[in-house]
Amino acid sequence: MAKSVLTPQGQDFPRWYQDVVAKAELAENGPARGTMIIRPWGFAIWELIQAEMDARIKATGHENAYFPLFIPYEFLQREAHHVEGFSPELAIVTHGGGEELAEPLVVRPTSETTIGDAMSRWIQGYRDLPLKLNQWANVVRWEMRTRLFLRTSEFLWQEGHTAHATYDEAQAETLEIFTDVYGDLIRNVTALPSVGGLKTAQETFAGADLTYTHEGLMRDGKALQMGTSHNLGQNFSSAFDIAYTDEQGQRQLCWTTSWGVSTRIVGAVIMGHGDDRGLRLPPAIAPAQVVVVAVKDEAVEAASRLAADLKAAGVRARLDDRTSVSFGRRAVEWELKGVPIRLEVGPRDLEQGVVTLVRRDRDAKEPLGLDGAAAAVPGLLTDIQRALLADAERWLEESTSQAATVDEVDGAGFFAIGWDKLGAEGEAVIAERGITVRCLLREDGSLPASRDEPGLVAFCAKAY
Amino acid sequence: MAKSVLTPQGQDFPRWYQDVVAKAELAENGPARGTMIIRPWGFAIWELIQAEMDARIKATGHENAYFPLFIPYEFLQREAHHVEGFSPELAIVTHGGGEELAEPLVVRPTSETTIGDAMSRWIQGYRDLPLKLNQWANVVRWEMRTRLFLRTSEFLWQEGHTAHATYDEAQAETLEIFTDVYGDLIRNVTALPSVGGLKTAQETFAGADLTYTHEGLMRDGKALQMGTSHNLGQNFSSAFDIAYTDEQGQRQLCWTTSWGVSTRIVGAVIMGHGDDRGLRLPPAIAPAQVVVVAVKDEAVEAASRLAADLKAAGVRARLDDRTSVSFGRRAVEWELKGVPIRLEVGPRDLEQGVVTLVRRDRDAKEPLGLDGAAAAVPGLLTDIQRALLADAERWLEESTSQAATVDEVDGAGFFAIGWDKLGAEGEAVIAERGITVRCLLREDGSLPASRDEPGLVAFCAKAY
Repeated sequence: MAKSVLTPQGQDFPRWYQDVVAKAELAENGPARGTMIIRPWGFAIWELIQAEMDARIKATGHENAYFPLFIPYEFLQREAHHVEGFSPELAIVTHGGGEELAEPLVVRPTSETTIGDAMSRWIQGYRDLPLKLNQWANVVRWEMRTRLFLRTSEFLWQEGHTAHATYDEAQAETLEIFTDVYGDLIRNVTALPSVGGLKTAQETFAGADLTYTHEGLMRDGKALQMGTSHNLGQNFSSAFDIAYTDEQGQRQLCWTTSWGVSTRIVGAVIMGHGDDRGLRLPPAIAPAQVVVVAVKDEAVEAASRLAADLKAAGVRARLDDRTSVSFGRRAVEWELKGVPIRLEVGPRDLEQGVVTLVRRDRDAKEPLGLDGAAAAVPGLLTDIQRALLADAERWLEESTSQAATVDEVDGAGFFAIGWDKLGAEGEAVIAERGITVRCLLREDGSLPASRDEPGLVAFCAKAY
Repeated sequence: MAKSVLTPQGQDFPRWYQDVVAKAELAENGPARGTMIIRPWGFAIWELIQAEMDARIKATGHENAYFPLFIPYEFLQREAHHVEGFSPELAIVTHGGGEELAEPLVVRPTSETTIGDAMSRWIQGYRDLPLKLNQWANVVRWEMRTRLFLRTSEFLWQEGHTAHATYDEAQAETLEIFTDVYGDLIRNVTALPSVGGLKTAQETFAGADLTYTHEGLMRDGKALQMGTSHNLGQNFSSAFDIAYTDEQGQRQLCWTTSWGVSTRIVGAVIMGHGDDRGLRLPPAIAPAQVVVVAVKDEAVEAASRLAADLKAAGVRARLDDRTSVSFGRRAVEWELKGVPIRLEVGPRDLEQGVVTLVRRDRDAKEPLGLDGAAAAVPGLLTDIQRALLADAERWLEESTSQAATVDEVDGAGFFAIGWDKLGAEGEAVIAERGITVRCLLREDGSLPASRDEPGLVAFCAKAY
């Protein structure tokens, strides 16, 4: 095992995060305050998540479109909660083309308003429903205290926006995205378990009736919101007159939804799987699933052939033939970057017809027959994907406790406590400990249809 | 053939363009002046172009990354020509988070400056070169007179940025992108021919030494710039101190390039292939390559089976089973949207074991055996892709004339005239006729390495 170049997690977790983001070349601060440069390795992880997400969004019948970056301020004002929630975070354009603008423009913090305005024109009759749109875009929310991937003034995301004829259809859409798209992606692509539930009134999206959230648990015992799906009721349809003529010829307001997952999810991957040696990337989103390292010049040819065989087998394989750089330094680098499998090809190994297999999710090295290596890798990748999920599930389970009293809701990890036992008063008490209600679930773990259902369980944690 | 719902091209081309963009549901104006909403059909065309482009950019060894939307104004000022060129088009953010900013931020019009700043940190030694980056992003250039896809205040594009050790390597990169990436994409994906050459000093990118451009010819005889590749010399490397230590331990300034293709290319597809009935989409970028239209209810089952067979064969096929909408209206809609192949499935056709094939690039309808239809389509699509290119090539050839004198450079289409015969004086004369030099080529059609080469030919045209 290579010597670590990172601050250990147990010593200073925020510092570990900063170290790994810098040393694995994931991202860095941009020149304008609060902005982020996503470097190629970090961006490639995001691109793989994007591709998986995009396929799921399209498979559930949504179409991509693109709406403008700039929004007239007046649009935001039309929905009272929306403008109240977003006003403190807005970036404002006051000059364009060398002149002061008659009306300042807002750089979009989210696009319910512009898209709502377009929907009001595009929807006429019931045959135009449902209207199911998505866009991939950058958004800006001014932040005072920023942290790469987790909280930056500009971030990248997808935002889905849909309109429906009835409340039930809008609610079904909200839950389909939450479970079949986000839930599936988080669990089966990023290999992270999550606690999924309903947000309390205080943490509901500004302008939504209901917000569902997936909360992951990072390795420091803090929760991270990984994706939210909102039932917007008729708040935006009444503000923007999104209406349709029904089969009886009556004009009806639509019911709308919106939902988003952002580059924040890269932060969840880093902090949900990482260890003291760096990233541990699930194979599904690893820019390189296998790195074939030629230990010395004499091994370059064999290593290169193996990398080519792996690529031909559909594996994202990379050849490291930088024999002028010390082997140890290269091993550290690939561990830092979280590549799931390292195949070391050395002259002595080759004499014995083997390569050395190093799995990033384990410590041990083991020999692997050179001839069968390319064929063995896809199975190993599936196994690593599964092992990372199992490990993260174990962590979540170990870090979750049942709290019988408000006093017990204290420390790291998740605390489950009856929502009627906690209440607004308890919420204020745990807030002093830096703990918030992350979401509300039914006792059987299923999703509530309303915050007012009796018997709900509050999952509480410190959070990013 | 269905009756047209568009203003004919010959009657009023700009109006035809406006009509087709609206009626094929490609795009519309956004609420803030000069902005654009790209609707699903238009965005799907862009996504297909993006995917083809992204694959070519990666195959030539470039990595995607993401740089911030906001740029400190001071960055732009560091390169004199750059700030001079872009100043009149900037959108400025003066307020963030409810407060006036100490230093205003520019919404990126292009990213040479931010990326140059990052390169200066990332490049240390010769081993870090070449550094080959690309980003997909929105950019803002304030425009007074806007036109959907062609000229909008915000548009989407890719911008590549590379740094090299020598001038020759930077020039080779500029030309590789120009020819192998852009040239290949324009010809083999968008099925449009282009005249490729070097920009005159006046039209060179603000901050570049050399700008190469692909100029397409629209159906009204006006040229449209479809993609540019810039050799930036050492202009940005000296402004941002992008330097490396060479093998002899000497510090050397890098040589950089940048290159971009934007959503403008969708405008080229519309105006380069469209006819009086609407779009004609090359199969490579058609969101639906085939629409299977069930004429009546009795045909829905067979049509649905055929659409499924086509999808299984890897064809982007769509089923139109809206039998409550008149057949004629649906035919007009798919012609407007430019779907390359329409397969009409009617009860009478079915009795004879055939469907009716309508190719968008031809007028005639012909029967096609139902059993062999799915197998026949891929070959037909290849044929249509080829036919559209051939047709556009014919148009370009017919519309290009050799001019012996400056007087002859007048009217629609391209005029080729000796650059030394035209000169700065002639340029001023043709400018009064609304004609500009689009690019300079060598007499044998190859690309010049400098604007000062003797014997260059100027290709002149009115342009978008």
